[in-house]
Amino acid sequence: MNSYGTLFKISTFGESHGPAIGVIIDGCPAGLTIDEVFIQSELSRRKPGQSKITTQRKEDDTFKILSGVFEGQSTGAPIALVIENQDQRSKDYSHIQNTFRPSHADYTYETKYGVRDYRGGGRSSARETAARVAAGAIAKLLLKKSGIDINGFVSQVGDLKSPPYTQLDLSKTEDNIVRCPDSATAAKMIALIDQVRLDRDTIGGVVTCVIKNSPVGLGEPVFDKLHAELGKAMLSINAVKGFEYGSGFAGVALRGSQHNDEFVNEGGRIRTKTNYSGGIQGGISNGEDIYFNVAFKPVATIMQDQQSVDKEGNETTVSGKGRHDPCVVPRAVPIVEAMAALVLADFLLRSKVSQI
Amino acid sequence: MNSYGTLFKISTFGESHGPAIGVIIDGCPAGLTIDEVFIQSELSRRKPGQSKITTQRKEDDTFKILSGVFEGQSTGAPIALVIENQDQRSKDYSHIQNTFRPSHADYTYETKYGVRDYRGGGRSSARETAARVAAGAIAKLLLKKSGIDINGFVSQVGDLKSPPYTQLDLSKTEDNIVRCPDSATAAKMIALIDQVRLDRDTIGGVVTCVIKNSPVGLGEPVFDKLHAELGKAMLSINAVKGFEYGSGFAGVALRGSQHNDEFVNEGGRIRTKTNYSGGIQGGISNGEDIYFNVAFKPVATIMQDQQSVDKEGNETTVSGKGRHDPCVVPRAVPIVEAMAALVLADFLLRSKVSQI
Amino acid sequence: MNSYGTLFKISTFGESHGPAIGVIIDGCPAGLTIDEVFIQSELSRRKPGQSKITTQRKEDDTFKILSGVFEGQSTGAPIALVIENQDQRSKDYSHIQNTFRPSHADYTYETKYGVRDYRGGGRSSARETAARVAAGAIAKLLLKKSGIDINGFVSQVGDLKSPPYTQLDLSKTEDNIVRCPDSATAAKMIALIDQVRLDRDTIGGVVTCVIKNSPVGLGEPVFDKLHAELGKAMLSINAVKGFEYGSGFAGVALRGSQHNDEFVNEGGRIRTKTNYSGGIQGGISNGEDIYFNVAFKPVATIMQDQQSVDKEGNETTVSGKGRHDPCVVPRAVPIVEAMAALVLADFLLRSKVSQI
Amino acid sequence: MNSYGTLFKISTFGESHGPAIGVIIDGCPAGLTIDEVFIQSELSRRKPGQSKITTQRKEDDTFKILSGVFEGQSTGAPIALVIENQDQRSKDYSHIQNTFRPSHADYTYETKYGVRDYRGGGRSSARETAARVAAGAIAKLLLKKSGIDINGFVSQVGDLKSPPYTQLDLSKTEDNIVRCPDSATAAKMIALIDQVRLDRDTIGGVVTCVIKNSPVGLGEPVFDKLHAELGKAMLSINAVKGFEYGSGFAGVALRGSQHNDEFVNEGGRIRTKTNYSGGIQGGISNGEDIYFNVAFKPVATIMQDQQSVDKEGNETTVSGKGRHDPCVVPRAVPIVEAMAALVLADFLLRSKVSQI
Repeated sequence: MNSYGTLFKISTFGESHGPAIGVIIDGCPAGLTIDEVFIQSELSRRKPGQSKITTQRKEDDTFKILSGVFEGQSTGAPIALVIENQDQRSKDYSHIQNTFRPSHADYTYETKYGVRDYRGGGRSSARETAARVAAGAIAKLLLKKSGIDINGFVSQVGDLKSPPYTQLDLSKTEDNIVRCPDSATAAKMIALIDQVRLDRDTIGGVVTCVIKNSPVGLGEPVFDKLHAELGKAMLSINAVKGFEYGSGFAGVALRGSQHNDEFVNEGGRIRTKTNYSGGIQGGISNGEDIYFNVAFKPVATIMQDQQSVDKEGNETTVSGKGRHDPCVVPRAVPIVEAMAALVLADFLLRSKVSQI
Repeated sequence: MNSYGTLFKISTFGESHGPAIGVIIDGCPAGLTIDEVFIQSELSRRKPGQSKITTQRKEDDTFKILSGVFEGQSTGAPIALVIENQDQRSKDYSHIQNTFRPSHADYTYETKYGVRDYRGGGRSSARETAARVAAGAIAKLLLKKSGIDINGFVSQVGDLKSPPYTQLDLSKTEDNIVRCPDSATAAKMIALIDQVRLDRDTIGGVVTCVIKNSPVGLGEPVFDKLHAELGKAMLSINAVKGFEYGSGFAGVALRGSQHNDEFVNEGGRIRTKTNYSGGIQGGISNGEDIYFNVAFKPVATIMQDQQSVDKEGNETTVSGKGRHDPCVVPRAVPIVEAMAALVLADFLLRSKVSQI
Repeated sequence: MNSYGTLFKISTFGESHGPAIGVIIDGCPAGLTIDEVFIQSELSRRKPGQSKITTQRKEDDTFKILSGVFEGQSTGAPIALVIENQDQRSKDYSHIQNTFRPSHADYTYETKYGVRDYRGGGRSSARETAARVAAGAIAKLLLKKSGIDINGFVSQVGDLKSPPYTQLDLSKTEDNIVRCPDSATAAKMIALIDQVRLDRDTIGGVVTCVIKNSPVGLGEPVFDKLHAELGKAMLSINAVKGFEYGSGFAGVALRGSQHNDEFVNEGGRIRTKTNYSGGIQGGISNGEDIYFNVAFKPVATIMQDQQSVDKEGNETTVSGKGRHDPCVVPRAVPIVEAMAALVLADFLLRSKVSQI
Repeated sequence: MNSYGTLFKISTFGESHGPAIGVIIDGCPAGLTIDEVFIQSELSRRKPGQSKITTQRKEDDTFKILSGVFEGQSTGAPIALVIENQDQRSKDYSHIQNTFRPSHADYTYETKYGVRDYRGGGRSSARETAARVAAGAIAKLLLKKSGIDINGFVSQVGDLKSPPYTQLDLSKTEDNIVRCPDSATAAKMIALIDQVRLDRDTIGGVVTCVIKNSPVGLGEPVFDKLHAELGKAMLSINAVKGFEYGSGFAGVALRGSQHNDEFVNEGGRIRTKTNYSGGIQGGISNGEDIYFNVAFKPVATIMQDQQSVDKEGNETTVSGKGRHDPCVVPRAVPIVEAMAALVLADFLLRSKVSQI
């Protein structure tokens, strides 16, 4: 239920305003050097308060490893990692104790469970994704051993779109606060988000992710296709509304004769001339770049009054309070990367048993 | 690996040109009346050769239940269901024994497994989806007990799009061979597919699915969100390239103040004024219509010569042979519905243990 | 529910008197030569009617592979294997349609499911174990590649016990119909079973299993210890009442100074001087012989009248009918071996991902 | 891997001498009152240093709940529970950094993982069972809602056996430090353990567990039989060598006519006259007492010199050090109960979906 993965498996726990959040990573092979500085750097890419276009909440998101690492190496035992909660202004949330915020999980949780930790959204808070980023950092360390490289970036905010990834220098993603490697588009995106923030409103965006140097053979046929798991992983991130890989929704309008990726022998290595397949054929990686888009809706918390109902069904008004992101995608980049890393790490291990 | 679901769980088996395909359904509660006529009618919606715009292969897709049903009722034991393969023209495939068809799974399977049943794509063939449709029919029988109703239809072929579902009469989906409930759009879609077929080419499309009368509370927080499972289920169908629910990719451009679904009390029932959420909030159904789009690429098998390589890496040409669909979406409608039914049935059972 | 295993996973289906029973093996690595003659020979060791001390029901238990094997080799796709039911004398069972046989599953199934396929016990019949034996045969083929050898034999019938396995020549197990490699004990066991049969009664027994040449490292810490999975696998076999490995229940009375297995260096290989541990330390194989005992109760079906109640709670009498085993252990030997093979095959695959 | 259960699922983490151990409970239904005093009392029954016949190590085993509980009630979110390690005398273990203790997991872990946290056995330490006891306490709270009552006690130490449970008053188990409800036997057991301790040796024992007031219908057919899961759960506890339920190994010598449990109608309720079945028929509870025995070997750590080898294969001597239990069964009683509670809670939830 709160776990993801088959062989490289994570289980997260924790609420926004409880004592701590955390994750157990079960199935990390023994002998991996656990670089804590790297894990912290990934958490810092996700943390609130990192720039003017993110929420101004301050959370350091420092973590502590409780198990599974001995003298700097993974031992094969489960790695438990905890992040204590700080700066919890629980009183900010007393106004929603009995009221359901529009397009939040308040109403569905209340109905499903009959009890609800309303403080900051409780379990439904995006704070949970910090645990994923920490676990994803360890997955990245494992993938690096195989040369696999994961690159997320912001490709759209509102109507503003970056050029396709093949025309971008992905090493520039961290050069600006919106995490779009095209500096001209980035400047416009930042201006747009800033305007939205001043309007006490929010806006959506798209994160694109490109996985380079994947070996051939990751992914399982039928239900656990590589792109099906990537899709599930991305759709499990808060605020995600859509997933497409390779040609995606635009590929619908093409003809097979345009869309098929013909094979060529490129200096002894089998390659495809085009890559509408997005690096995945029949659910299994073919060695080309794996790329996909993840659509995020505008953040549901806005600094405006909205119509709602309370637990008794009385119509009421919810006022926006607290400190929230006007646009989620800049901070979503490391989350998308983390989930992609978890999917790939799992399939990398699963691929060890495909043949006798 | 070849299983889907947690409590209502299916495991499929079988290759395109082996003796049979089939499925085990494990976890169907006891006491469900198994309507075999209904199962057959669902299989017939998917079967090849049903109209001029589908493949002309003839497969009756008659099934046999081997277990789990006694005197017309499910017993709680696994329901095994087998469909024998017929009309197997395996010789049609000898040309691809050593050659990889572009945008098919030939190359990735060969590399992953070192051995490949090349006849008709073997395990990677869309024939496997017949087993899903049969299992999905049983899931639908279970859902009907709770009033849940699943409606798929073709909303796009190439560039041709139907109006939004809220403007359509979904009871008309089966009135035409392309399964678009808007007759004017349907006529254009049929003409387009017919033209593509004459061009010895293929084209993509979109299937939209609308789930009505879902109770509040289906879906699990965090990783197994309702839309995340729906996404995985749809992306696991052959040729699918994208999934979006509710506002989807278009929602990216909206502002939170436009996109949020405000709550109202409608005669004692809590409803939302709009439904950008697609019936799902925080990963859990809220009682509104659940709706989503599934993008299908143009079928990879075209009746044209294409460049490729063989197992030894020699460049060669693959010629289109056999009898294939010019557009997959008309036959994909029951597959999308079946996977949706499997997801919903699973969550319906899982929801029984949310509260003490 | 009806599945066993993590990476080498089986799912069985079928009732005693339905059309067929069968199994899907999901996760068998590609490239394994599937020796159908061997599979049949294993099924024949389990089949009814093989000697005077087993049931006289005749079932050939011939199987058919429906998928997952191409040109004699596993392809990595699920292997579906079906055994049609024959010689079904369903009328033998009309007397238990409304009555619960003592120490059978009739009452618990009826209460749990509200519906029951009473013919021959339906899903609760030991006929289901034929599917396990077939799957176990494929597991054995995989294990043979690693040199692992599984040897079951009958070590006890009633009060008659064979000497410890270390004093036996296990190659002689198939030399007699009771499958005890000690010919003197075997003769007594056969005489005892024959007498019990004439008494229209049944008797219990013990199957001992010895696994030789296991590599070090099979089994997972904590919950999935090698002996815990072996225990579950054995206890899942019909009529099993107990499981012990290594010193087992007798080890309770020893002192640590007697029981501990001291390590020695035997020509460069780390060995233990004794093997009270049964080849497993901390849940993981240590390279010594793995051995365990499995206790089977006397078969519940006896040819005598017994007191019982019917579905309405009326007290009544159940008469023994049909053709049944007076003692189950001779035919249980291949079942115990099959389950052991499935456990080992699963852990063998799982061990591939212990280290980076 | 480090998880147990299907719907009521626990995942444990932590090493003997790391910062903390703990557990995530995923799947506890919402609305359960979490009685922290009860959880602590269960932990205290397991903790070291509680009497003269247990290890003199002092560990308070106080716990902290990090998530999943709000205002004293479970919320349906994962319950994370952490116990910090104290009194870690890691230096006690430097002598085994490179040497393998006989009948411990040192050698198998070293070989399987290539790296080993040797301090106190690391992950293989029985300290891990504290996490199980905490989780089991929550399972007990859930079971109490259904009236299910779990009673473990010490029935054997060395050769000393208590009378059968039906002749005992199980409410007296906690009346003495060995946890045997028969005071005469208890006194002898305590004397024996004390003598063994003075001999710098250890001895084995048996814990018997009796589950009262189970509803009919817990357990799943075929692989997940109630006793198969109980067996796995018990065998996963450190030092366990055997499991039997109902008549167990002794039942082997009986005839079917003796062993079968005939049905009677007892005031409108269907009962059995005898209970050789141990409350389980066909893998499913029948409403009678569920009872089983769990065999524990003598603790491997003894205060004597033993022959061994080091990592390089050199023969050497291991000296007993530290503070250890001369007999594990008194402290094992709450562990056996906890695992039984986890099994029952899981099946109780699973039983909710047996029928439509």
